[in-house]
Amino acid sequence: MATPCALLLSGGMDSTTCLWWLRHQHPGPIHTLGIDYGQRHRIELECAANLSQQAGAASHQVLELDLSSLVGNPLTDPTYQVPDAAAKRQADTVVPFRNMLFVNLAAAWAYNRDIADIYLAPVRDDFKAYRDCRRPFYDSLEESLQLGAPQDRKIRLHTPFIDHWKSQVVALGLEMAVPYQDTHTCYSGQRPACRVCDACSERLAAFAANQSRDPLAYQ
Amino acid sequence: MATPCALLLSGGMDSTTCLWWLRHQHPGPIHTLGIDYGQRHRIELECAANLSQQAGAASHQVLELDLSSLVGNPLTDPTYQVPDAAAKRQADTVVPFRNMLFVNLAAAWAYNRDIADIYLAPVRDDFKAYRDCRRPFYDSLEESLQLGAPQDRKIRLHTPFIDHWKSQVVALGLEMAVPYQDTHTCYSGQRPACRVCDACSERLAAFAANQSRDPLAYQ
Repeated sequence: MATPCALLLSGGMDSTTCLWWLRHQHPGPIHTLGIDYGQRHRIELECAANLSQQAGAASHQVLELDLSSLVGNPLTDPTYQVPDAAAKRQADTVVPFRNMLFVNLAAAWAYNRDIADIYLAPVRDDFKAYRDCRRPFYDSLEESLQLGAPQDRKIRLHTPFIDHWKSQVVALGLEMAVPYQDTHTCYSGQRPACRVCDACSERLAAFAANQSRDPLAYQ
Repeated sequence: MATPCALLLSGGMDSTTCLWWLRHQHPGPIHTLGIDYGQRHRIELECAANLSQQAGAASHQVLELDLSSLVGNPLTDPTYQVPDAAAKRQADTVVPFRNMLFVNLAAAWAYNRDIADIYLAPVRDDFKAYRDCRRPFYDSLEESLQLGAPQDRKIRLHTPFIDHWKSQVVALGLEMAVPYQDTHTCYSGQRPACRVCDACSERLAAFAANQSRDPLAYQ
């Protein structure tokens, strides 16, 4: 039987490549999920919806996640700990356990639809800086979901690219003709992309490593 | 050093008793957290805020959790699986992994304030029907939080009443003069409480087991 699966699709390169990979690997319907967590660049959400449609996904749903009550204002909230200036600059944007919340929401959506297989696309480049992009975290989270589910039902968190460098993901995507021109990466949220932010730089390096030209429009 | 802690406070009997218990047990500041997940009865949130203040908690914060995008409408959403009529009636209200989302949000709030100890008050009566009220689930979730945290930092999920029956929680609360008249339990959201819903029945039984009169106003 062709069982359905769900994919967390941000509209970036990694999850979009995962979507195309699933089209080849997964015989059943693929449901894509975006998360609207109030990201400054709404273009991400639009890209995800467009890419889902291009890929012929069975459905695309945007799940709402209001993080505003979590992001304290160090200037007005005395409970908010601000160890140093660098952390202070980040304080408005960083929400710990954000990936966990994303997966938690996706799992809730999937559970009510009898979908046991959830895909997401952390890559090896994220591994060093982000502890929630490592497999031991996802193994533990998978167990938590299974233990906490209303019924004893199998729930699987798949991270097929977790040992792939971004350049390897791009290599795979180029083989599958992923429409990278329609993905979004730039931190500044610009289209054409800025070319100079960390995200653009990493992306361009991944294409360069494949001796390939990024089809995205750049300034 | 008197370290701070956070408590998920619903405004019901169990978490309110836990708050009074913490006043005796926990030497540091106690921060209480309510979750606004769109509950039909706003009275719960008001009770929690009021009880937090009565208890002299260091702060009370309401965290927002919009579950509307998770609660599918079986009539309009073809991806939504509805196995039978009973499940259909429940479909509008049941969100799987809700406790996990609550803890996840509380942990994010606490992490940014260097609070490592998070309290919540599942009781033994919940154990049978709700798998996410069992300690193995919280052990696993604690591990997931530690593995997924931005930094390798201790995070502890405390469930002091998990082996207590509700009647034992009430016994403890009566000793500590918990203002039970200011808690909220009734499913129907009425004040005076309806007396007949499952929640009111359980509550009255817990007081009866203690040969005590519930000070709450009933119809």
